[in-house]
Amino acid sequence: MSKKWFKGKNFFILFFIFCFVFTTLSIVEAKRVKYIFLFIGDGMAFPQRVAAEQYLGKKLLMNTFPAQGMTTTYAANRFITGSAAAATALACGIKTNIGMIGITPDGRIVKSIAEMAKEKGMKVGIISSVSLDHATPAGFYAHVKKRNQYYDIAVQLAKSNFDFFGGGGLKDTLNKKKNSVNFQGDALKIIRDSGYQIIKDKQMFLKLKKGNGKVVVINPWLQDAAAEPYSIDQTDKDISLAELTEKAIEILDNRHGFFIMVEGGKIDWACHANDAVTAIKDTIALDEAIKVAYNFYKQHPKDTLIVVTGDHETGGLTLGFAGTKYATYFDILHRQNLSFRRFTDEFVKKMKTSKKFTFEDVMPLISKYFGLQFTGSADNPLLLKPYEVVELVNAFAMTMKNNIDEHDPATYLLYGGYDPLTVTITHILNNKAGIGWTSYKHTAVPVPTSAIGVNAGIFNGYYDNTDIAKKIMRCLGIKPKVYFVEKQGEKIKLVANW
Amino acid sequence: MSKKWFKGKNFFILFFIFCFVFTTLSIVEAKRVKYIFLFIGDGMAFPQRVAAEQYLGKKLLMNTFPAQGMTTTYAANRFITGSAAAATALACGIKTNIGMIGITPDGRIVKSIAEMAKEKGMKVGIISSVSLDHATPAGFYAHVKKRNQYYDIAVQLAKSNFDFFGGGGLKDTLNKKKNSVNFQGDALKIIRDSGYQIIKDKQMFLKLKKGNGKVVVINPWLQDAAAEPYSIDQTDKDISLAELTEKAIEILDNRHGFFIMVEGGKIDWACHANDAVTAIKDTIALDEAIKVAYNFYKQHPKDTLIVVTGDHETGGLTLGFAGTKYATYFDILHRQNLSFRRFTDEFVKKMKTSKKFTFEDVMPLISKYFGLQFTGSADNPLLLKPYEVVELVNAFAMTMKNNIDEHDPATYLLYGGYDPLTVTITHILNNKAGIGWTSYKHTAVPVPTSAIGVNAGIFNGYYDNTDIAKKIMRCLGIKPKVYFVEKQGEKIKLVANW
Repeated sequence: MSKKWFKGKNFFILFFIFCFVFTTLSIVEAKRVKYIFLFIGDGMAFPQRVAAEQYLGKKLLMNTFPAQGMTTTYAANRFITGSAAAATALACGIKTNIGMIGITPDGRIVKSIAEMAKEKGMKVGIISSVSLDHATPAGFYAHVKKRNQYYDIAVQLAKSNFDFFGGGGLKDTLNKKKNSVNFQGDALKIIRDSGYQIIKDKQMFLKLKKGNGKVVVINPWLQDAAAEPYSIDQTDKDISLAELTEKAIEILDNRHGFFIMVEGGKIDWACHANDAVTAIKDTIALDEAIKVAYNFYKQHPKDTLIVVTGDHETGGLTLGFAGTKYATYFDILHRQNLSFRRFTDEFVKKMKTSKKFTFEDVMPLISKYFGLQFTGSADNPLLLKPYEVVELVNAFAMTMKNNIDEHDPATYLLYGGYDPLTVTITHILNNKAGIGWTSYKHTAVPVPTSAIGVNAGIFNGYYDNTDIAKKIMRCLGIKPKVYFVEKQGEKIKLVANW
Repeated sequence: MSKKWFKGKNFFILFFIFCFVFTTLSIVEAKRVKYIFLFIGDGMAFPQRVAAEQYLGKKLLMNTFPAQGMTTTYAANRFITGSAAAATALACGIKTNIGMIGITPDGRIVKSIAEMAKEKGMKVGIISSVSLDHATPAGFYAHVKKRNQYYDIAVQLAKSNFDFFGGGGLKDTLNKKKNSVNFQGDALKIIRDSGYQIIKDKQMFLKLKKGNGKVVVINPWLQDAAAEPYSIDQTDKDISLAELTEKAIEILDNRHGFFIMVEGGKIDWACHANDAVTAIKDTIALDEAIKVAYNFYKQHPKDTLIVVTGDHETGGLTLGFAGTKYATYFDILHRQNLSFRRFTDEFVKKMKTSKKFTFEDVMPLISKYFGLQFTGSADNPLLLKPYEVVELVNAFAMTMKNNIDEHDPATYLLYGGYDPLTVTITHILNNKAGIGWTSYKHTAVPVPTSAIGVNAGIFNGYYDNTDIAKKIMRCLGIKPKVYFVEKQGEKIKLVANW
């Protein structure tokens, strides 16, 4: 080719072809992204997001993101997924069986996008409001046959070399469950020996600085199952998801970029218990964490991608109830001021120990903590109808009886294995607001996925949860496919014997 | 400017600028579209779409469309919308009050996208499985204060000058409701006098050809409220939504293009009655109609846009039920072979007249038409549990008692104003499949919107139902805004006296 080709009109032909090819490629191919945030609302689908908006009286930030997709969630062996299979899909891009983490149904280890980011030299942060060894966070660093191998998961956390873990605690650092496939002594010691600082104090957390090294932050108060308290029960002494996100950004920001996963893990738990207000408050807490990432995005708009999704819907939450017909009264939900969990733990436990409690003693508690009224104007949407009072009386009797037959299907429909009084209170309050529930488990309705920033557009459309991992691989500059890890020494040992 | 500018390298500069500007504009601005289809599933949100897929065991065509959006549905004066306000939003791009069609809350007439298309010289077709004067179809050609002004709506149909109407019948052509604001005699005569051929025979329908003039096609059998029968109850003698769509395309295709709106109107009615199978079959019937449009799109890919949306969700349908926990058994739904409506009309009516019917007489009918079993293996998901048999026995007693107190809130929760036996049968069958319901009315969960063809990409994202009208205006080459009709003679009269 002669040098003349680069002169005169030929230059313009070449330049035009370049522009055309570049534009085409930039539309088809995703750009490598320096800062990637993945927010996962466990159990958060459309009803949860819209209920939170209606409760707040304003849009959630995540719902305003320019790219919006819809994501199917089914597992390899079940239409209604679980958090382990869903986490594996979101983290590794594969469908696996219920309860499995980071492996295929036949036990092959698959690499997660967090592990890929780490290999690319990025720093990695994993944040969750539930225990750090819970299915969703574990999906990004662990590979186990059963999600309740909490000891093995804790050891894999230590070996991950990820830079920041924060949120709840660890459920079984001493293998008390006796289900480890490779017990090696106290997991906390292994975590420390792997170079992690373990922080359980808010003041020490706030003082954390870049250069302090790898860290595991555990909230000072673990409410249930080694999880952070529900947002509705948190005080300034707790470390919120937003604070964890802010600190992770501060610590992990570096020239090679970072990948940060933040899970709102207790939206799911509150929905299992059919407690809408607690789920809504945890959804809002996740949105507050997203706001922190959004502020970072505004400072680095050309280098940042924020993706928000859910792993499945929980509870069969709907925004309409037979009893309220076309009306809704979301304002009454503001009268609830603690979670079902705290009510059960603090008040129901007392009732059951004293045995002297009568329904008359419980009535003022129901009014104080949930706003429901036993007397008053018929116009008050909080006034209990006679049949609702009967439901509460029956539930209270069941609570005090202490021998619920959970195998009786009709009883299960009413209480779902939760404290009968508490779940009946939240059912009635939610129904009065115009909210319905159909299950105490997950459902199969698709979840929304929202994105803003670099490559956000590729998150438009209707796709599978495994595609989210693949889309993020594209943003990491990695060919989107499943990456099997055939030999990985200790990790293979830790999965299981197949 | 000298002629030299158009020669040599300058030509390439100009050409490059042209390419750049053209590309930019084509991304920002929507292209004028010759053939526009708008499919509306009344009451069709995510749960309905996914339930239909799970029932079929394969994807719905609408769910495979490349552009997928999410649409909020609230009305001007209520969080949970109704079909009239929703139709006005989808057709005219404005929020109005519950029950109002084609007007603002304060009574100003707003132009619909169908009327705009007509003014642009395109042909217009309006198809619905419910009566042609029902809220959703009426939203595209009528302007009334109250959706039940069926007579006035029929007269406005006559005056619309639209080219094709097809589906159900007309509910009040003689103003028997006495609620017309401008009675002018038999509306059928007015329709004929306005140049429409009224066809109620399938053979005549099949023979319809281009050039036959304006036509109103009414299905030979109107099952309920002047609507076509539910898809599950249809035979070859009925004219399906797909057949109507095919005929409309054949008749309306012309060099100025067309706008065709097709409503699956009884998805909503089946969901009101909490009958999942009937809703699923009507969702599939809508998808079959979409397939017809899709085949046309494949022949005219550069001139066609297909948009599919819902006006709201109905029933609080969810894909998970407390009683089945994480399991689903959608295969059992195939055992139902008629709609709740036909069962009530054909069998329950007989029971109630004879009065000699016992529950033992009803049991074989429940098994024959819904598959539910009173005896058999405990593994059979169709086997009724003892508490479910009790529910059926109670419901049968209520059916036969014939004096249900619909104002009793607990009774309403159970039966929602429907025949107690029938609704209890569908509740139990649906629940056994893993489907839950929370309401007999609409809910406020956003609905998915899907699109394929020219400008499909603008239907990605999370937006309001009013935006759908505005996006379609862009496809009509019209500036997207609300178009008020300040003076329109007879139409003003027909709305109401304000």
